[in-house]
Amino acid sequence: MSLSAVLSRIDDQLPAALDRLTGLLRIPSISTDPAYAGDCEAAADWLVSDLQSLGVKAEKRATPGRPMVVGHIDGPADGSGPHLLFYGHYDVQPVDPLALWHTDPFAPELQDTPHGKVIRARGASDDKGQLMTFVEACRAYKDVTGALPCRITFFFEGEEESGSPSLIPFMRENAAELSADLALICDTSMVAPGVPSIASQLRGMLKDEFTITGPRIDLHSGHYGGPALNPLREISRIIASFHDDTGRVAVEGFYEGVHEVPADLLRQWESCGFDEHEYLSSVGMTRAHGEAGYSALVQQWARPTLEINGLWGGYQGAGTKTVIPSEAHCKLTCRLVGDMDPDSLRQKVRKHVEDRLSPDAKITWNQDLDGSPAAVMNISRPEFEAARQALSDEWAREAVFTGMGGSIPIAGFFKEVLGLDAMLIGFAQEDDAIHSPNEKYNVQSFHKGIRSWARVLDALAK
Amino acid sequence: MSLSAVLSRIDDQLPAALDRLTGLLRIPSISTDPAYAGDCEAAADWLVSDLQSLGVKAEKRATPGRPMVVGHIDGPADGSGPHLLFYGHYDVQPVDPLALWHTDPFAPELQDTPHGKVIRARGASDDKGQLMTFVEACRAYKDVTGALPCRITFFFEGEEESGSPSLIPFMRENAAELSADLALICDTSMVAPGVPSIASQLRGMLKDEFTITGPRIDLHSGHYGGPALNPLREISRIIASFHDDTGRVAVEGFYEGVHEVPADLLRQWESCGFDEHEYLSSVGMTRAHGEAGYSALVQQWARPTLEINGLWGGYQGAGTKTVIPSEAHCKLTCRLVGDMDPDSLRQKVRKHVEDRLSPDAKITWNQDLDGSPAAVMNISRPEFEAARQALSDEWAREAVFTGMGGSIPIAGFFKEVLGLDAMLIGFAQEDDAIHSPNEKYNVQSFHKGIRSWARVLDALAK
Repeated sequence: MSLSAVLSRIDDQLPAALDRLTGLLRIPSISTDPAYAGDCEAAADWLVSDLQSLGVKAEKRATPGRPMVVGHIDGPADGSGPHLLFYGHYDVQPVDPLALWHTDPFAPELQDTPHGKVIRARGASDDKGQLMTFVEACRAYKDVTGALPCRITFFFEGEEESGSPSLIPFMRENAAELSADLALICDTSMVAPGVPSIASQLRGMLKDEFTITGPRIDLHSGHYGGPALNPLREISRIIASFHDDTGRVAVEGFYEGVHEVPADLLRQWESCGFDEHEYLSSVGMTRAHGEAGYSALVQQWARPTLEINGLWGGYQGAGTKTVIPSEAHCKLTCRLVGDMDPDSLRQKVRKHVEDRLSPDAKITWNQDLDGSPAAVMNISRPEFEAARQALSDEWAREAVFTGMGGSIPIAGFFKEVLGLDAMLIGFAQEDDAIHSPNEKYNVQSFHKGIRSWARVLDALAK
Repeated sequence: MSLSAVLSRIDDQLPAALDRLTGLLRIPSISTDPAYAGDCEAAADWLVSDLQSLGVKAEKRATPGRPMVVGHIDGPADGSGPHLLFYGHYDVQPVDPLALWHTDPFAPELQDTPHGKVIRARGASDDKGQLMTFVEACRAYKDVTGALPCRITFFFEGEEESGSPSLIPFMRENAAELSADLALICDTSMVAPGVPSIASQLRGMLKDEFTITGPRIDLHSGHYGGPALNPLREISRIIASFHDDTGRVAVEGFYEGVHEVPADLLRQWESCGFDEHEYLSSVGMTRAHGEAGYSALVQQWARPTLEINGLWGGYQGAGTKTVIPSEAHCKLTCRLVGDMDPDSLRQKVRKHVEDRLSPDAKITWNQDLDGSPAAVMNISRPEFEAARQALSDEWAREAVFTGMGGSIPIAGFFKEVLGLDAMLIGFAQEDDAIHSPNEKYNVQSFHKGIRSWARVLDALAK
């Protein structure tokens, strides 16, 4: 009963909700540029005030960088329902190149486009618009029922776009206050337009870098070409050995902890609306080049990789220099899935390289690069299926547990620091131009996003 | 009879000869820097005057760059003996880094060192000192006998250290004037201290460069890692395919035109005093890494190579960037021997690469890079054996027909433009620091160099 009243209230109040979002978007809360530190304070103040207006005990909390906003509100008087922690970030990316914007990035505009109405401004999608979908769902609930269906802690940071330096220390210092039953994060995209998505697995990362030294000094290829060990040949041979002919990584033990995608999840993915042709052709590819036997989507979401991100040595200028260089350099990253362990994987990769070095070749490894495991959400928890059903109801389309090829570090931090599982639900579209000029958020994403959260809260309360 | 008188004269006049060399070394005739254009003119004038003082009809000849010096002098009145063309260059390398010089590079000093007396200055070895060994031999001959034993054309250029842009056009325009029976060049080293050397084979060169393009744009390895074709992996795989496990080049047809070293020449090389251990260990190597079954010297002088001189793509800065770059680049050079043809070799190398490209990989080749065949001297001409015997007499040690791993383009140009075989005899030492700070020429090299040329002229006249 009350849910349908809440949804009606959301529909009625959409113009007011857009007005509130517009107010937040007007604040140029760019975190990476100290010139905007005052604007970050203003955005935090705005959120404190907005949360207080719906009865949340909210405060701005100082950090060595930009402030956090923390707010608490109780759920039903009988104490039923889970305690949820909702995370978002109020800081935004810089706007340069400003010349490519068609409007002032901090003068939000509602615009009609061929794909529907949008609100255009820096942060409209990432993450102010997404963050406000949840706040507005709470407001509607409060307006209609006088209370929220669950106890909720709000947790907004202002440094997400500048590496979140204060986040982990703040979480550690305030772990008791931030404890909850489940974290909700609204900072992700839908896998395809109209397809509600819960990101349930994110790949981890291992970073490494090595230098191979051959001759003690750069040599002249007339004098030493032939007898000299050429480190560029050496590094090429080693890089070539990382993969077999089927695209599988040939490092011994690389696939330990990798699991095949369960059949039911794979079926969801196969019908999730992901456009493989568009995905590949938009960057000039006619096929997926990863491990044979896996679709592009599975390669991206559920298979580990070993990629070369940088490779260099010798002469790079115009014309020819007949040098045999002393050194060759390689930067690599692995994307991790399942239970792959970054530390043991690092040892395996290094052993693979060192086992293949020629006599007289020396190797040094960068000792300053880290790694993090994959984040695999605990979708066997009943809240995940409940949320999936709620999203399916709102969008009249089966919601999908998706993967993500990249990382969202916050999900791992919640687990590591607070012991909290996280559920990532977002309504952004691939074409939102986050981090780029002319960022926008679809009004449909905003509207149905608010409705989605109302349904999810209702479902989780039960 | 007259030869021993000439040699005595050379011994007596060594101080005066060193004085004359000092005069030439004082002129900072750096060809690559326009600020020294006037000094190049002065060096050319100095040489014209010096040649005229021994009866040569010598002139400075303008070019679009630095001037040439051309001089002619007849041999014996009866017209006997061959007509020789002697080549050298009066320009020198820049002197930077000047701070590393212990003396003024253009204030020549005679110094005692643990390895004997040296004259220290820019150009002392390369090539003013070497050039003057021949001129001084002619002077001694003229002084003692009143004539030269052969007809001689002197040909000095002033752009050798800046790529000789005027050389081929000048040779073409003055081909009749520069015609002779044999060219003599004094711009090379002795294979080991005290071992007289005639460089009889120089490796040629093929230059090439390619770019492999994978994705249309740089990609994020979270979003595309796995499905994307990574051009750094692609280029590494292709470079790794250039050689087999024995160090042999695996490009089909690569060895066409390559000949094994004749047994008698190989015997000379084996006893030529080349110190393989020093050659390798001085640059940090414990073994020769070229084709299995060949010594380091044979690998350097008589075997072709395919070397990677530059390789790059992706991120080279500090830390990590999770990029899959759009492009990867490779610069390569081949050293050619025997009858290898640069043009057909280029096609073979390119075919090797293109045959191995993955679908979706595109390749572009630099179209501006050239090639030149190996220069193999015609040592079956009797002049070569005569000169070898003359050098052996002077140094009391069997002279050696050596190879060179690099190129001396002028030798090829004489053949190509003038149809002239060239004989390369030089007295420089590996430690002369040519092109480096504190360049020197051993006074023994200068003194015995002059005596060597006197003997060679005597031998060739017969």
